Amino acid sequence: MHAPEETLAASARAPRTADGAAAVLELLRSRGPLTRAEIVEATGLSRSTVAARLAELLTLGLVRQAGAAASSGGRPPVRFAWDPRSRSVLAIDLGASHARVARTDLDGAVDAIVSVELDVADDPGTVLDRLVATAAALPATPGAGPLAGVGIGLPGPVSARTGRPVAPPIMPGWDDYDVAGRLAAGLGVPVHVDNDVNVMALGEHRAAWPDSDDLLFVKVATGIGAGVIAGGRLQRGAAGSAGDLGHVRVPRPSDVRCECGRIGCLEALASGRAVAADLDGAGPGAAGPVDAEAGASDAGGDGRPRVADVVARVRAGDEAAVARVQQAGRDLGSVLAGAVNLLNPGVIVLGGRLAACGAPLVDAVRGEILSRSTAAATRDLRIELSRTAGEAAVRGASRLVAEHVLSAAGIEQALAR
Amino acid sequence: MHAPEETLAASARAPRTADGAAAVLELLRSRGPLTRAEIVEATGLSRSTVAARLAELLTLGLVRQAGAAASSGGRPPVRFAWDPRSRSVLAIDLGASHARVARTDLDGAVDAIVSVELDVADDPGTVLDRLVATAAALPATPGAGPLAGVGIGLPGPVSARTGRPVAPPIMPGWDDYDVAGRLAAGLGVPVHVDNDVNVMALGEHRAAWPDSDDLLFVKVATGIGAGVIAGGRLQRGAAGSAGDLGHVRVPRPSDVRCECGRIGCLEALASGRAVAADLDGAGPGAAGPVDAEAGASDAGGDGRPRVADVVARVRAGDEAAVARVQQAGRDLGSVLAGAVNLLNPGVIVLGGRLAACGAPLVDAVRGEILSRSTAAATRDLRIELSRTAGEAAVRGASRLVAEHVLSAAGIEQALAR
Repeated sequence: MHAPEETLAASARAPRTADGAAAVLELLRSRGPLTRAEIVEATGLSRSTVAARLAELLTLGLVRQAGAAASSGGRPPVRFAWDPRSRSVLAIDLGASHARVARTDLDGAVDAIVSVELDVADDPGTVLDRLVATAAALPATPGAGPLAGVGIGLPGPVSARTGRPVAPPIMPGWDDYDVAGRLAAGLGVPVHVDNDVNVMALGEHRAAWPDSDDLLFVKVATGIGAGVIAGGRLQRGAAGSAGDLGHVRVPRPSDVRCECGRIGCLEALASGRAVAADLDGAGPGAAGPVDAEAGASDAGGDGRPRVADVVARVRAGDEAAVARVQQAGRDLGSVLAGAVNLLNPGVIVLGGRLAACGAPLVDAVRGEILSRSTAAATRDLRIELSRTAGEAAVRGASRLVAEHVLSAAGIEQALAR
Repeated sequence: MHAPEETLAASARAPRTADGAAAVLELLRSRGPLTRAEIVEATGLSRSTVAARLAELLTLGLVRQAGAAASSGGRPPVRFAWDPRSRSVLAIDLGASHARVARTDLDGAVDAIVSVELDVADDPGTVLDRLVATAAALPATPGAGPLAGVGIGLPGPVSARTGRPVAPPIMPGWDDYDVAGRLAAGLGVPVHVDNDVNVMALGEHRAAWPDSDDLLFVKVATGIGAGVIAGGRLQRGAAGSAGDLGHVRVPRPSDVRCECGRIGCLEALASGRAVAADLDGAGPGAAGPVDAEAGASDAGGDGRPRVADVVARVRAGDEAAVARVQQAGRDLGSVLAGAVNLLNPGVIVLGGRLAACGAPLVDAVRGEILSRSTAAATRDLRIELSRTAGEAAVRGASRLVAEHVLSAAGIEQALAR
């Protein structure tokens, strides 16, 4: 027998009434339709407790009666199933120059989705009202459940304590703005806010790697950031800033100054913006704001280098572009090598628009990690491109809401209404 | 409202009967003695279910009847309390040249402890039999509960899958040795094995920082390693190698070759061994095996530099020693700066014998982290020396066992006997 999982921390809070309902719901989600007797057997709860919890879940609509079970005689017992379509979720992926607004069910299945152009540098009220209007105009889906909540990923840091943006570089008017309050006022439901990379990590994990408890999602776009899944859970850190890979110093000599004022930050050397600027002849550190997902630099027309152009050149086999992206991959890999030693993830997923360069980037990242990390940490490590085809953020935003609705806290709140 | 805790991953497995007993036990541990009615109220379980779970816990001895509650009339209701003294735990801190063997209760209170000299480079059977004999010779404690398990921290990597050492540098004969099997054969109880740094992180967290969910414990001794607490839980990573800071490359130019074959590893520049070797005039990279907690290099008599001598010189104000330790602190801080950006811990604890240098080391670490990490990650970060006075490993080894005994899985196993 070896070291056990720690189970105490996870159950440190006192149990609540709604825990029973959440446990029954989780059981139905993982095992499919069950009879009342099967639920009693699996949970160890009494018949009367199971009946009470099922009654609550039926009232909320989160569980419905499914077909009757096979019976050896007499009246076949009723089976119960969870109903992912009992609620709708609004999932918003807000980028620098566009947003995607989707309505999904509690399982993340997309019923309607629309993209809109906008400029996140505008004042937040204008942008958020635009999102509310876009959501309101989504085509109705027959049979869709009532809206349970909104999940939104923002292209900038979000405080874990307040849920508000913290000095977001590409959206200066948004510092400490009450994003959730504005959206909730317009849409009438609770709003869950996180940064885009955390939301993408959550979406990629649930959609493509549900069995991997330790995953690092790295977004390489105009800027560079990561979402950390450890022990099966998204880790936000003590103040919500976990995953900020962009300002880790690359372990090779460099005199490139980052926008943050420090020397040799990963983002200043290996971001889409840095690569595009170099290929454009502008030299490192010479172009627009860092941390921008697409931003003015991708909106075109202002002479700034575009990440999309880099990807196109790499795909066309342009040698200078390929070589520059490989160097970016090595720099990224040299920083990720430290993260691999520290966290020992089972999977590293590369996403964001520079990741569309594919093999030249991924192979360079992989080569550097394999040469720099310990053998123990890399033996079973997978390093892969995102598999969610740009849907990670919408899927993760939907999960933010579903995980709350299906939790004991969410059930408790719904029952209190 | 902002992003909720993820609650699904934590409850992904189907509930078991013993979950109810574990929940009742956890409630009594966190809230103190309660009546049956108070437990029903707090858990939402039925009266009959609570009665059944209490009966099980009373049978196991993990819960006992406490004094009666105050009553407004009639017979005062009985109260129930958890009993940390219902079981004993054997907690072993195995170092390179010594071991500490303690008997504790389930709360980590030490009833008896003894240190023994040994050489971990000996064959594992000899060393482990010595530990068994040492445990057997511990003085009896009147009223101590029966032995529930053994927790042991080893000075080398341990596989999360098998619980066995993986190519441990300072204990070459121990690769893939069944440590748990040998100790269990000698002591007759389940054995939980982990590496010493994970065990120290667990002990420091529980003893000194129970309210901080995100903590990095860094052991700076002959080698360098870390234990990662994120989201309140010890994170071992996909293969159990998380926390291996020693072979992260320091982000300054260096041509020092590490024992692992790579250039510029933190351990080759900032470990107690590297510092001692430099001060000894032997030059970096010139002394014995890395990763040794104390090892031959501390046993003296073979001419190798000793970490204890470094500490003594620093404490005496020796300028060369202070300057060299400050450089080690800067190198350590420059690597920790990346870990801070990635994980956003609330606390970094510095332990291990080089940490006994105190301020010169800690101040250099702190200065580098504050200058290299992002403001968001360092705003509320604390960087502190270990507060467990060398007891972290014994306390953590005791926790390994207690967490299993008090978990649903542990209760299930006990009930099945």
